[in-house]
Parts: sequence; structure tokens; C-alpha cells
Amino acid sequence: MNNLKDNKNIIHKRKMEKLKENINASIKAANIKRGVSILLTGNGKGKSSSAFGMVIRSLGYNYKVGVIQFIKGQQSSGEEIFVRKKCPSVTFYQMGTGFTWNTQDRSSDIAAANKTWTVAKKMLQDDTYHLIILDELTYMLSFKYLDENLVMEGLKNRPANQSVVVTGRGASSALKDWADTVSDIQETKHAFNAGVMARKGVDF
Amino acid sequence: MNNLKDNKNIIHKRKMEKLKENINASIKAANIKRGVSILLTGNGKGKSSSAFGMVIRSLGYNYKVGVIQFIKGQQSSGEEIFVRKKCPSVTFYQMGTGFTWNTQDRSSDIAAANKTWTVAKKMLQDDTYHLIILDELTYMLSFKYLDENLVMEGLKNRPANQSVVVTGRGASSALKDWADTVSDIQETKHAFNAGVMARKGVDF
Repeated sequence: MNNLKDNKNIIHKRKMEKLKENINASIKAANIKRGVSILLTGNGKGKSSSAFGMVIRSLGYNYKVGVIQFIKGQQSSGEEIFVRKKCPSVTFYQMGTGFTWNTQDRSSDIAAANKTWTVAKKMLQDDTYHLIILDELTYMLSFKYLDENLVMEGLKNRPANQSVVVTGRGASSALKDWADTVSDIQETKHAFNAGVMARKGVDF
Repeated sequence: MNNLKDNKNIIHKRKMEKLKENINASIKAANIKRGVSILLTGNGKGKSSSAFGMVIRSLGYNYKVGVIQFIKGQQSSGEEIFVRKKCPSVTFYQMGTGFTWNTQDRSSDIAAANKTWTVAKKMLQDDTYHLIILDELTYMLSFKYLDENLVMEGLKNRPANQSVVVTGRGASSALKDWADTVSDIQETKHAFNAGVMARKGVDF
């Protein structure tokens, strides 16, 4: 019995040594040091929440962070309350019109989107920002509320050390090409579809 | 020109009215009020960061939160620094052994995993916790460091109002069956594979 356990341990140790070698080789191969661009898309839960996780990751090191929320802003959320109250160093800006199916007014949505993009663009030119979140930006492009060429230009011409996270469903191929990292968050299951209400402190 | 614009606006308004009706119907249909179970799995970036986004979402409403990190803990991270310094109300516990390919010691990993599960299980029986994060729990099951039946029993028998988030690659089918919401975060692209170093304040 003890021999069997010892064997298992020896095999495990060898496997892990090999795995460690591979991981170390990959880490050594990744030697370009700069800000990264991240796109979180797909229909599943976890896009905006992941962006806010990165916000506190940066705040842990006292980096400057900017958050721009397209669409959101009509209803309050836990992350908004938290960031506004507890993280005064974060620049927080919301388009504030709410969902386009609530406003039902294309012209005013477009005006609000462009005003919000002006704020975003200024941040994207300011190298004191370590991390910028552009939450729900994808919809502004798919609804054609913002000119994609102008947006892509702003995203591409940012300072080399600045990281940007873009979230939202249905990201365009221009955004997918641009991003260093693309996560496609697929919805395998969602509580909402089984009749469970959106949960305070978890979903909003 | 103005007529064309007006038409576009009218069509948009009608579309949005219809969309709003559908959304309102779905919201009305989801009427079960309780804590939810969320599984964030897949190889893509955004699992742990999303869990930490939910942590601040709950903290925005002053809910009690517990975070248990399996595996992680040998290297410091921005989110850990932030939560420990700025969120003293959060119960934060790390297995602290680091990655199994670093320890290379199966027996001590198993002992550490079981000790950590004991802490998790206690939280899962405490209805003062609104949200519990079990970061990287999936690996404890795939490595067979923890007994899956005991883990599933602990997850299933928690208080009705408590929400739990489990993260990690390669989630077992028992975890997928259990969770109300399952997001499969697929890695379309990762900066690391293009030679870009993991970024402080973004990746860790």
C-alpha cells in the first residue's frame, strides 16, 4: 500500500517536473514588455465582471485606471457603487443613457455615444493611465453609433504601456484583429433561463 | 436627407419597442429569488478576474464575501493586495502551496487541499456569507486532490440565499450539472502566445 502510494508520488513528481520545464520555456519565450489589449466578448456571463476584476488588480499596485461604460448607467450596480465610493482614484464615466431598447431614440443615443467616445479618446492619449476599461463598446460599433475607423484609430494609437479592455457581445472582426487577447465567453447555461432572478451583488 | 434620417429613427424606435417587450417578458418569467451557483471554466482569460469583479459587486451593497484560492498564493497578485488592504470585511484564504508543477509533491498538495476545503466547507454552511468565491477549485477535482462527492455535497447543501462562484479550467461534469450558470471562456487568442509578457495589473 505504501509502495503504491510512493509510486504514485514518484510518477506525479516526474510529470510535474516535465510540466514545469515546459511552462518555464513558454515564460522565457514571452519577453515583449508592453501594455496589452484585451477583448471579452460572447454571450456568456463574465465580461464586465472580469473587466472590474482587472480594475482592482491594477489598483492593488496603485496604477491609474479609467472606466468608461457605454450603455450602462441608468440603473445602479454594485461595482459602480463600490468604485465610486471606495476607489476615488479611478476616473469613472458613464454614457448614462441606459439600454438602447429603453431609450428607443437613435439620434440621442448617437449623440451620447459620440460624447462618451470623446472622453474615452482623451484617456487613450494619456499615458498616465495604466489600464482603461471600455465596457460595452462593441454595441456602439454594431449599432453604428460610432465610426469604427475612428474608434480603431484611437485604440491603436494609445501609449505603448497602456492596457485596454473592451467588453460586449458580438465584437466586430476589426476589434478581434486588434486585440492581443480575445476571450469568447460562451453561455453554456444561465440561471435566468431557468427562471432565477438576476442576483444583487452577483449579476449587478 | 432629413426624411431618410427620420425613417431610420422610426424603424429603430419600432425595433427597440419590440425588443423591450421581449426583454420585459423574460424578466417577468424569471421570478425565483435565491442565491445562484456560477461556474467559470474554459482555457481563456477572465475566470478569476470575473470572480473578483463579483466580489466588488457584492461589496458595493455591503454584503459579506468569502474568497478561497486553491493553488494560488505563492506569488502575490494585484487583486490579493487590493482585497487584503482595502476590503478588510472579506474573508480571504489561500491554499498557498502554489502550482502543483512547482510543489511537485502530491502528498503535501493533497493535505493542503483538504485543509483548504475544510475552510471552504465552513463558509458554505454559514448563511451570513452572501457570496463565496472558490477560485481554481476545478483542479482539486481533476487532480483528485479532493473527493468529488464531498465537494458536491458541500456546494449543494449551502444556504438558499448564498451565491457561489467556482473557477478553473476543465470543470468536471458534476460541477457543470450543479451550476445554475456556466460560462465556457474560450481562448480565441492570447498575448502570451505572441510573445507578450504577462502584464502587471492586468494578468496578475
